[in-house]
Amino acid sequence: MPYRKLCVCEYDGTNYCGWQIQDEGVTIQGEIERVLSQLYGGQRVAIIGSGRTDSGVHALGQVFHYTADIYRENHSVLFALNTMLSRDIGVLDVRDVPLDFHAQLSAVSKTYKYVILNRRTRAALDTNRAWYRRDRLDVEYIANLLKLIEGNHDFTSFCVKSSVKEECVRLINWTSAERNGDYINIKINANGFLHNMVRIIVGTAVQFAVEKRTPSDILDIIAAKARRSAGITAPPQGLYLERVHYE
Amino acid sequence: MPYRKLCVCEYDGTNYCGWQIQDEGVTIQGEIERVLSQLYGGQRVAIIGSGRTDSGVHALGQVFHYTADIYRENHSVLFALNTMLSRDIGVLDVRDVPLDFHAQLSAVSKTYKYVILNRRTRAALDTNRAWYRRDRLDVEYIANLLKLIEGNHDFTSFCVKSSVKEECVRLINWTSAERNGDYINIKINANGFLHNMVRIIVGTAVQFAVEKRTPSDILDIIAAKARRSAGITAPPQGLYLERVHYE
Repeated sequence: MPYRKLCVCEYDGTNYCGWQIQDEGVTIQGEIERVLSQLYGGQRVAIIGSGRTDSGVHALGQVFHYTADIYRENHSVLFALNTMLSRDIGVLDVRDVPLDFHAQLSAVSKTYKYVILNRRTRAALDTNRAWYRRDRLDVEYIANLLKLIEGNHDFTSFCVKSSVKEECVRLINWTSAERNGDYINIKINANGFLHNMVRIIVGTAVQFAVEKRTPSDILDIIAAKARRSAGITAPPQGLYLERVHYE
Repeated sequence: MPYRKLCVCEYDGTNYCGWQIQDEGVTIQGEIERVLSQLYGGQRVAIIGSGRTDSGVHALGQVFHYTADIYRENHSVLFALNTMLSRDIGVLDVRDVPLDFHAQLSAVSKTYKYVILNRRTRAALDTNRAWYRRDRLDVEYIANLLKLIEGNHDFTSFCVKSSVKEECVRLINWTSAERNGDYINIKINANGFLHNMVRIIVGTAVQFAVEKRTPSDILDIIAAKARRSAGITAPPQGLYLERVHYE
């Protein structure tokens, strides 16, 4: 009888080629599968994440599931993973879930956080953890701009398309942007995210703020449905998959 | 005519053998002096910090001064240092100060921060930035305990003495301990700190909290004037020199 487990994990993406297993390079998924297969007597254990994260992107609450024929106690799985994984990947929680639970398909929404270090001098402590922007950014402007893209939109302009046919309508439930000292924390919750969507939204919002563009121009960018109409892609090190929400 | 500069710097102490220059190993002071001497035409520039930090200890606002015969603009020094220093050391501010300013002797007080990650599972993102403690700590207990050591005391029990004759009376002006999610932030401001003083205070406070000791026992430890009467030394990676205060 197969058993399904849900795991919540945290990682520093700096030293990995992203979440998804690739032919070359060390990935988060690859590392977790390698350790799990040791735990399950050598058989391959495939894990399915809530979604991919790119190289250099971090997670505070990535969720994945896997199915195994042998039952292992949750605390044993948690202990084994945290003992055997390298120290920049950690597992926060392990739970039993029904066989129809799916880390990606059952997800109702996800929250991403983007951190900008905004001060006169570069980072020394957070070089791999934030996007450094020297010029003072108007956080209220950014917060208001993000409010304009809330709701159901075709976000073609804010993604790197993997295929022409890809469906690009997503629902942004809420956004926020707050200053905390020298740091700006941006959060976006949506029912799903396209490739690089948060990074292009943040990059565009920052460009808008710097160029003092009329905020409602962002709606023209959405309407254009073309990546070239939007702004730059913010770098990966400021991005964190904060939480995946389920029913 | 000599000129004196004050610099405020930030660093991740993980990859350094502490602040002070040593015969072997890379130090923060050594790195900054190396870059400054390049900036000042090859002559040795000695810097004097507000105090030492140990290997693995970080700084958000370490202050140092130096004297040079050539005048350099503050923004040029700032730019040169941030360009030439490795990315885990950064300079936040450079100012002209009178020749009688002294980074250590002119300091009125210093504030240290100590960060504990307190949750069921180990860190993945902050392995070099916080002390991981699994068992739930009572932050209010710790805050109240720290209140008891405020004021003027002989902190012999809370230091590693470099000599028997060392004067160990220090004035703790204020302390605080607050929980922020899984993190506990402890701050201590004093007119001076003995070697390992914050780490031994934090280690002892955590042990007191775990063992549910009577808080006022901490006064007996102060009265004992013996390092062995206090608790463990908290590890370096949770410690940050936050700020040095001047008149």
